[in-house]
Parts: sequence; C-alpha cells; structure tokens
Amino acid sequence: MDLMKIKDPSFLKKLSNKELQTLSQDIRQFLIERLSSTGGHIGPNLGVVELTIALHKCFDSPKDKIIWDVGHQSYVHKILTGRADQFDTLRQYKGLCGFPKMAESEHDVWETGHSSTSLSAAMGMAIARDLKKESSYVVPVIGDGALTGGMALEALNHIGHEKKNMIVILNDNEMSIAPNVGALHNVLGKLRTAGKYQWAKDELEYLLKKIPAVGGKLAATAERVKDSLKYLFVSGVFFEELGFTYLGPVDGHDFENLFENLSYAKKTEGPVLLHVITKKGKGYKPAENDTVGTWHGTGPYKMDTGDFVKPVNTPPAWSKLVSETVRKLARKDERIVAITPAMPVGSKLEGFANEFPERMYDVGIAEQHAATVAAGLATQKMKPFLAIYSTFLQRAYDQVVHDICRQNLNVFIGIDRAGLVGADGETHQGVFDIAFLRHVPNIVLMMPKDENEGQHMVYTAVQYDEGPIAMRFPRGNGLGVPMDETLKPIPIGTWEVLKKGQDAAILTFGTTIPMALEAAGILEKRGVSVKVINARFIKPLDQEMLLKLFKENMPILTIEEAVLQGGFGSSILEYAHEKGFHHMEIDCMGIPDQFIEHGSVEKLLEEIGMTTDDVVKRMNILARKKQKRA
Amino acid sequence: MDLMKIKDPSFLKKLSNKELQTLSQDIRQFLIERLSSTGGHIGPNLGVVELTIALHKCFDSPKDKIIWDVGHQSYVHKILTGRADQFDTLRQYKGLCGFPKMAESEHDVWETGHSSTSLSAAMGMAIARDLKKESSYVVPVIGDGALTGGMALEALNHIGHEKKNMIVILNDNEMSIAPNVGALHNVLGKLRTAGKYQWAKDELEYLLKKIPAVGGKLAATAERVKDSLKYLFVSGVFFEELGFTYLGPVDGHDFENLFENLSYAKKTEGPVLLHVITKKGKGYKPAENDTVGTWHGTGPYKMDTGDFVKPVNTPPAWSKLVSETVRKLARKDERIVAITPAMPVGSKLEGFANEFPERMYDVGIAEQHAATVAAGLATQKMKPFLAIYSTFLQRAYDQVVHDICRQNLNVFIGIDRAGLVGADGETHQGVFDIAFLRHVPNIVLMMPKDENEGQHMVYTAVQYDEGPIAMRFPRGNGLGVPMDETLKPIPIGTWEVLKKGQDAAILTFGTTIPMALEAAGILEKRGVSVKVINARFIKPLDQEMLLKLFKENMPILTIEEAVLQGGFGSSILEYAHEKGFHHMEIDCMGIPDQFIEHGSVEKLLEEIGMTTDDVVKRMNILARKKQKRA
Repeated sequence: MDLMKIKDPSFLKKLSNKELQTLSQDIRQFLIERLSSTGGHIGPNLGVVELTIALHKCFDSPKDKIIWDVGHQSYVHKILTGRADQFDTLRQYKGLCGFPKMAESEHDVWETGHSSTSLSAAMGMAIARDLKKESSYVVPVIGDGALTGGMALEALNHIGHEKKNMIVILNDNEMSIAPNVGALHNVLGKLRTAGKYQWAKDELEYLLKKIPAVGGKLAATAERVKDSLKYLFVSGVFFEELGFTYLGPVDGHDFENLFENLSYAKKTEGPVLLHVITKKGKGYKPAENDTVGTWHGTGPYKMDTGDFVKPVNTPPAWSKLVSETVRKLARKDERIVAITPAMPVGSKLEGFANEFPERMYDVGIAEQHAATVAAGLATQKMKPFLAIYSTFLQRAYDQVVHDICRQNLNVFIGIDRAGLVGADGETHQGVFDIAFLRHVPNIVLMMPKDENEGQHMVYTAVQYDEGPIAMRFPRGNGLGVPMDETLKPIPIGTWEVLKKGQDAAILTFGTTIPMALEAAGILEKRGVSVKVINARFIKPLDQEMLLKLFKENMPILTIEEAVLQGGFGSSILEYAHEKGFHHMEIDCMGIPDQFIEHGSVEKLLEEIGMTTDDVVKRMNILARKKQKRA
Repeated sequence: MDLMKIKDPSFLKKLSNKELQTLSQDIRQFLIERLSSTGGHIGPNLGVVELTIALHKCFDSPKDKIIWDVGHQSYVHKILTGRADQFDTLRQYKGLCGFPKMAESEHDVWETGHSSTSLSAAMGMAIARDLKKESSYVVPVIGDGALTGGMALEALNHIGHEKKNMIVILNDNEMSIAPNVGALHNVLGKLRTAGKYQWAKDELEYLLKKIPAVGGKLAATAERVKDSLKYLFVSGVFFEELGFTYLGPVDGHDFENLFENLSYAKKTEGPVLLHVITKKGKGYKPAENDTVGTWHGTGPYKMDTGDFVKPVNTPPAWSKLVSETVRKLARKDERIVAITPAMPVGSKLEGFANEFPERMYDVGIAEQHAATVAAGLATQKMKPFLAIYSTFLQRAYDQVVHDICRQNLNVFIGIDRAGLVGADGETHQGVFDIAFLRHVPNIVLMMPKDENEGQHMVYTAVQYDEGPIAMRFPRGNGLGVPMDETLKPIPIGTWEVLKKGQDAAILTFGTTIPMALEAAGILEKRGVSVKVINARFIKPLDQEMLLKLFKENMPILTIEEAVLQGGFGSSILEYAHEKGFHHMEIDCMGIPDQFIEHGSVEKLLEEIGMTTDDVVKRMNILARKKQKRA
C-alpha cells in the first residue's frame, strides 16, 4: 500500500492478518530503501515492524499511551502515524527526528534518547490516569537491554508494588546495542527456552492428582508443593515475584500470537509484562546476520550488498585511537581494566576484549554501576579505564562525585562523543560534561587537539596516580596528523601556545582549534595579531600562562563546543576575578542556554554562531580595543 | 569489657558465644549512652551489633573487605576497630565521622553516605582480587532499603552474571529510613515468612517419591515438576534466578545461627546472598518501638525516657513549611501529586500523605525513577512536587536534564537540605545543586530569604506552568518571621532590594542574607554604603536590576553557600561579560573547590572564610575602590 497516504493508525482496525503481513513487507521495504540513503537505526526498527502494527491495531493512540524506550525503534510508529513522507529528511537539520518528538505528532507522548526511562514515565502516566479517573492503557515498550538500566529496575520494583494497570511490552531481541549481558539476560534466556516446551495443562493436572492427600503437618507441605507448581505455568517467576503478571514468550513477528496475548493483557488487572521475542534486523539479511551491533545504527549503505557507502560509524577513529592506546599500555601495565556500559562496539573495545578478556567488563546498560565498579577497582590499586559517552556519563554524575572524586580515586574516564554529535540530536549532544564536571573537586579534565596529542593524553591519564582524570574526545575521526612512536606524559595543567600574537588571545581546545587557527590566519592578514592557545587542560587551568595574559591585559576569546553556562569560559572569568584582574576583556563563545536539535555538526555550529567568521568578528572587536589603547 | 582498649578485631577470635553476647550488651550500652549526648544514627547501629561482631569474627579485616552500604551503621565496626575513644567527638568538626572514612582506619575500605553503592564497589574489589590472584572475601553489607536503589539492582544483575565469589549480607530490618516500599520488599516479606515453616527435607523427599515414574512425554514434565520443587528449599527464588546462592533468612541477633550461615557462605562458590533479619533499634525500647523512622538518626536525647533534648531533626521547620504549603495548595489544586524517594519523614510529608493518600507516592530509594515519574505525571497535565534532598538529587541529574528539562515539563522540584548540612559531612553537603542545575536549559531555580517568602515561592512554583521550577531551601529551621495569610506569586526572575546603598552591592540569597545585612550594617557605620539584594532567582537572573548595577559601575560581591566553580557568582560574571561590561569589579564568595567535611555549619563557614567579618573585609576593599574613583 502507499505508506505516504497514511494519516493515522485508525486504518489498521479494518485490516486482516494477511493484509497486515503485506503492510509489514511494505514497511520493511520502505525502511530498507530509505535508510540506505539517509542512514539511521535500521536494525531495531526492522525488528519491531509487526509489534508496532499490532500495538497500533490493539490500542487507540494517543488516548492509549504507547511509550518507546530509548526511542530509536520508533520509525514504524512514525510511518503509521502519518510521517512516511518525511523520511528523506530523517535525522537531518530541521528534518524528521530519529527519536519520538512531541512537536512532530500527538502520538509521540514521551520523548527519549537515553535508555530505561519508559517504565517510570509510564508509572507517572498511569498515576495521572487513575487520579483523573480516565480509562486508557499505558503501554511502555522496553528492550531487554534497557531493562538492566537501574532506573528501569527501580521502576519495576515500584510498579509491581503499586499494582497499577499497565502493559509492559518487553521487546527481547537478545541485544541492546551490543549483545546483552547480565543475570537478567540469563533469566530471559531461560524463559525463551521454557516457552518452547509448551507444557500442557492436562499433563500437569494428571501429575498433581498423583500427589497423595495427606493430613497433619504434611498437608501444609503438600499444599506448598502444589503451590510451587505454579512456577511451571508462570515461567516468568522472576517477574511474578516482582508483582507482574507474566505473559509469553510470544513470537513478535506472528500477528495471531501477538493479538491473542495483547487481548489477554488488556483484560488483566494490575501490571502485565508481555515478553515478546523479536529478531533485530528482521527481513534484511545483512542486518539479520549481524551479531555484534554493526547494524544497530548506520550511515548510508548499498541496499543490494549491504556494503556501507562510507564507514560513518565504523571505524570512529577517535574511539579506536583511545581504546587501542589503552590496549597497548595494558600490555605493560597489569593494573589496567576496561569497563563499558554496553558500548564495547561504539567504544571500539573489541581489540582490548580479545587480547585481555579477563580485564574487560561490559556491565550492560548500567552507567552508575560502571562508574562505581571503576571506583572499587581503584581502591585496590588497579587502574580502571571507564569508557563512556559524554551524554551517558550524565547518568553517573553522583557516582563520579560521591564515589570517584570524593574518595580521590585513580579512575581514568574516557569521555567519548564529547561536543555536538549531530544526527542523534538533543538527547545525545555531549555538551554538558564540562559544566557538570569542572565543579567537582579533585578531577582533572582534558581534551586533546588531535589524535597524536590524544595518544599522549591517554598515556598521561594512565600514568597519573593522584586522583581521577578524564579525557573528553569527539565523535568521529581524527585529523590525520602524524603519530609519534613514543608516548610521553603531558604535564598536568599545562597549555600550549599554537600561534604567537600580541593583540588578543584565543583560548580553546579540541575540535574548535582548527577554527581558531583559521580565524587567526585571516586576522593576521588584516593586521591583527592573535595568539592561539591550546587550553588542553580544562581543569586545572594553566594558571601561569593565564596570569601572564592577565598581566599583559590581553583581550581573550574563549571557545568551547559545550554549554557556556558554567563552562570553560566561565572558569576563566572566575579565575580572573579571583586574582583581582577585574578589568580583563573576556568574551566567551560556546553553546547557548538551549537544547540543540539534530543536524550536521557544521550546520548546528553555524546556527549557534560558532564559525570561523564569527570568531573573526568577535576577535576583531576585542583586538581593535587593545590596539586603540596601545 | 573496656571498649576503649580495643585496638583491632582480632580479640574476637578467642571469644565464646556467651562472651560475645556480653560484648554485645556492652556495645549497646555504650552506644545508647554516648549517642544520648552527641546524637547520631542510633537505630541502624543498635540493629547490627551482633551482625558486625559476627562479621569481624568470621572474616579477617582489612584483608577481607567489609563494605558498609550507606555507612551510617558502621559505629559498631568503628568500636571494634579501635575507635571507641573518639565517640565523644562523633560527627563534630575534626571529630569521628558518622560514616566510614579511609583516613580513620585501614578497616574502612570504602567510603559512603549515599545508598546502594556497596555492591558495585564490591564487584570492583572482587575483580581486582581475582586479577591479582589474591585470596580474600569481599563482603558488602546492604540494607533492604538500599537494595531498591537502581545502581544496587544494576550491580545484582552484573554480579549474578559474572559469578564472582562474594558474600552479600542483606541486612533486612524492613525499614530504609522510613518503612520500605516496593515489590522487592514484598519478596523479602515472603521470604521471612517462608523461613518460619522450616520445611524438613525428609518430608519433601517423601512427597517426591509419591510422584509416579512415567515415561514418554510425561517423563519430561515430571522431571520439570521435581525441578520446580527446588523452590521449596531455595526460597530466595528471586535471587537464585539472578544467579546468587540464597541463604537464610537468619536471625541477625543469634550468634550461632549467624556463624553457621557465614561459615557455609565462605565455602560456597560464586556469589552468595545471606539474608539476615535484624531489628532496628534493638535493645533500646524507644528506638525499638519506632515505626516511622524517628530513631533513624537523632540529636541528643534523655537516655532513660527517650525524650529528645531538643528536636534537632523534628520538626525541621523548612521541610515542614514547604510540604505543608504544598498540602494547603493541594486542597484546591487537584493536579498536585507529591513524590518522595524514601524520605516521607525527612521531607515532612506525613500530613500530605494522611490527607491525600492517593496523591502521595513514596517510591523507595530510587531518585532516578522518582524524577521521571514526576516527568510522566507532568506530561498528563498534573503538577508533580518532587521532594528531594539536594545531595540525593545528584542521583537524578540525567533525569532532570533528559526527561524533565529537555521536555520542558511542569515539575516542581523541592530541593531540601541545600547548602551545608553540618554533621552528616562531605557525602551529604548540598553544595553542588546550583552548579549542576543552572547550566540546564529551561529550569527556573530559586531560593527564599525566609519562610514567609518560602511559602510565596511554593505558591509561585505551583502556579508556574511554563516548565520545570526548583526551589532550594536549607536544612533546619526558618527565621521565625511573621507569615502572610494570603499567598501571592513572585514574578519569575525578579530580585528584591533589601537595603539601599551606593558604594557597592551584595548579591546573595537564602541563608547568607542575614550575614550580608549584618555586614552592611557594620560597613554603614564605617561610612561605606552597601546595597543588599535578595537574588532569590538564581536562574533566570534579574537582568534589569543587574544591568542597572553594571551601568552604575557598582562593585559587586556575590555570596552563596554553594560551590564557587560554575555557581551563582559565575553566572553574574558571565552575564557582565556577555553584555560587554568587561570592567566590573565582581568578587565571588562561596565554597572553594574541595569537599567539605562534617562539623557545625557555623564552624565550617568560618573555616572557608564565609563569616560576617569576611564579608566586611572583602566588601570594604571593593567599596573603597569605588569611593576612590568617585
């Protein structure tokens, strides 16, 4: 059928299972085609085609609330709610968001990006529904990976206790982004197997009758034996113990099976957990055969072969540089242990894992636990390397403060995807880390200008034994600079003058350095002499170099691809005023006080006024003032 | 025995159970006596006297790692490790810390204060032990309340999967700080009951034999029936499913029982969970009879009657003012729903809970879930009031950013215990919230100068419907000012001039206002005219008033009882430079870049240079400059 003509999901009600199967094929074909040119989360979406259709047929969205956990699997939902015609703009500036977005549709009742929030959101909605005495279904859809996130487990505990009506769809594809880990995963594995036995009720009844009628003390025992047999039916004893009615496992690609169970779930009082088994990448061979997570989210690819047009996500050279340097150092340093919260692929830790399997821990989607495991290791004189994305480190803020920094432990935090990340948009921008880390006592925070400095910084971090040290690095690839053979430590808190100048100074670090140098070059031609400083240590500051600038009364422009409020620029202002230099002309460039949506990083920087032109303009104003004074 | 003479726990090895009982009595008497004058966490410590003795007899600390979750129950441990003589300084400046502290003793292998970190720390230590091929026991001791914290559940999931040797002591007293909630609590309740049945193995064997031998398809069923009977023995099916060997429940006040189980646990491969039942407040009637949490942590009390010398914790007038104002407003506003993560008593929400039981949710120790439940409620046009301590809000940083502020939802966050908290020390100081909140787009952050303004602010927050709004307020009591009858909203982003002046201005808010006014009075007498501004909105700033100050070239001193880095003062610097006022003399007073230990708030403020004298000195310098210029 013509997916472009879909306005809302109401048309599904009239379709037969056979017609729904045809629709599924059409949607799959559409996704495989469109995503081949735009890229996107192909694997997760191909896995939930039938499930999404079934949910929209059985429930009345938006009256009933379908809540997508993480949200990158909402493409089918977007098609069924009238957005097929926007897929050519997927994840592009001002285009269709790769995650649910309230502004796009009334059917998007909850926005996400980070994992494990859906159950808590659903609980809030269920409480509201009951207080308002409304009648509707609340249906969070959560993956088996997201279920291991602490807040999802907190929510299970609360929901099971409160007994609110809610239908939790557990979308079990045995993968989060990488293959799943954790005891809960094993529990689910057992349930999947158990489901295959198809225990017949009558067989059980037969056996139960054979248990003799007994009196006295034994009667109670017998009763308990019989009780315990309920576990045969309710294979999901783990969830039953938590207060849920467990249904499943159900084949998530079989409409009949799905409808039967959803309809039973709708009639059940209290919280239900419907265990649905799906196949990530279903219907597209290259994605179906993926066992490590390559097809979780991709750039454009050739539809017929499944070859990537260009390896946008693989290899993300920065992640690889960092992880491979850690690996190299681990050969000589037995203290090094790598920890990742479910991102072995994204953090390019496969090489490390292969070489040092016993020193590599993928703890699942569990950022808080990951950070504190690192702290625990550090108390025992090990050197943990916590590989984590900037945006996900937000989940471990308290653990960084309370466990790592307060105890001043030697944890090396590799902050990946720091700065703007582009297509993943506002839930994933790594722009807060400077502001939420630099006020934490004891931490060292740094960012390299290129991959060669990056490798030296990794070495610096591993050598450093006076407390926590974090290195932020961007998404994507390095600059292609020559790499030194020998690693050497960079003195903590030292900056580097990249270009001399006397009219004004730019203080910046990481990805914005090329822009600063380019602007300085342009200004030079116009007779303005600009010093460019690689402020590679965001904390501690290079106080010596700063004081020199202050004493020279040098106008300063700070640039950071991070939020301005409480950021690096702010720390320069603080230091100037603390030291009594109240008359410094300091101008701070960075990300304004708003959430930044999806789009290419270049486009986003242009929108927020962070281009070479902007630097030239603002620098010019500052520098001319000084020239005038002189 | 003379507890003062204990140097380390080795003496326990030689003691008989009877002698241990005498020791228990001595320790109880010591605690009841000492804490009656110093105050402290009496309830939790009286509950773990025998358990702590048993652990130190069965394990070899510090080679074996005993890890106290939360840590306020470590007093007995401190006595047994040679610190009885320091109890007269408990929780006082430079005195014995109320939590484990590495600097105090090699037996304190992990520092805490926040809950639910022990399992992750233990996992890190177990990994380190195995990599170093050492042989030792890792023994985290976690309460049933702390177990519902997301990171503890993340850790259970990981530990159960990795199968590392570890003996988790589940200290189940059916309370966290308030009585526990949550499905896991129900699971534990069932286990406690089940334990009382004392199923005899032979009875079961008898029944099992009665199940007939059958062939074919039924044989598999029969096998499965028999398998399922294991649940009779392993009552802790919930934990068994997660990969733990479950032992218990054990009476935590019975040495024989404890030793038997601990000794079995030591011989067991893989992770063990030993379920120990203890009685909070055991041995001291007033504390034993406590059902709501009054005796969790207290100030001084009269030993014989259990009357509190002065109600230090109850009533904490600020919490009460806020919660009772919310309650009053809830009578006319059906949208209001209160949410607390296990702090109904601390946040003084009992009144609200009694009047609106269906609109009050205690979600257990689960800050992340609490914040996102609030977000979910707000999507449905409800008005959630999230009552949370500043230090515990750190756990929900990502949920505040990603779920509440990014979606710009109308959540009212009541940030209790903001600023220095005193005796609880560095894990509990509420000094980071300004720095970790003000860079988050969309949030309004405010703090009242007194309880009358406080009630108007609560009203303001409830009326406000343009996004998230947070009000921070201190631990302890208000100033005793007269209270207005009628509540009125305070215009967002407006400050208030409390005292006029032309030589300089102080910008401050909340608890530091009296100090500012006092200093201004002193300066006035010395001929320096100081304006004092109640900067009650920390975000957004009162731009109009600020610009006026800037245009008047008024020297400014900012004062905040919060970290300086990225704090309120920093935001004034940012705004001045953003608006091109590069020549403002701005001096920022606040908490320096270090963790602040325990002690009275007055003493701590003195130590960090935040007294009236300091204000006078720094203000004088600034103001004289202006006078000179004029």
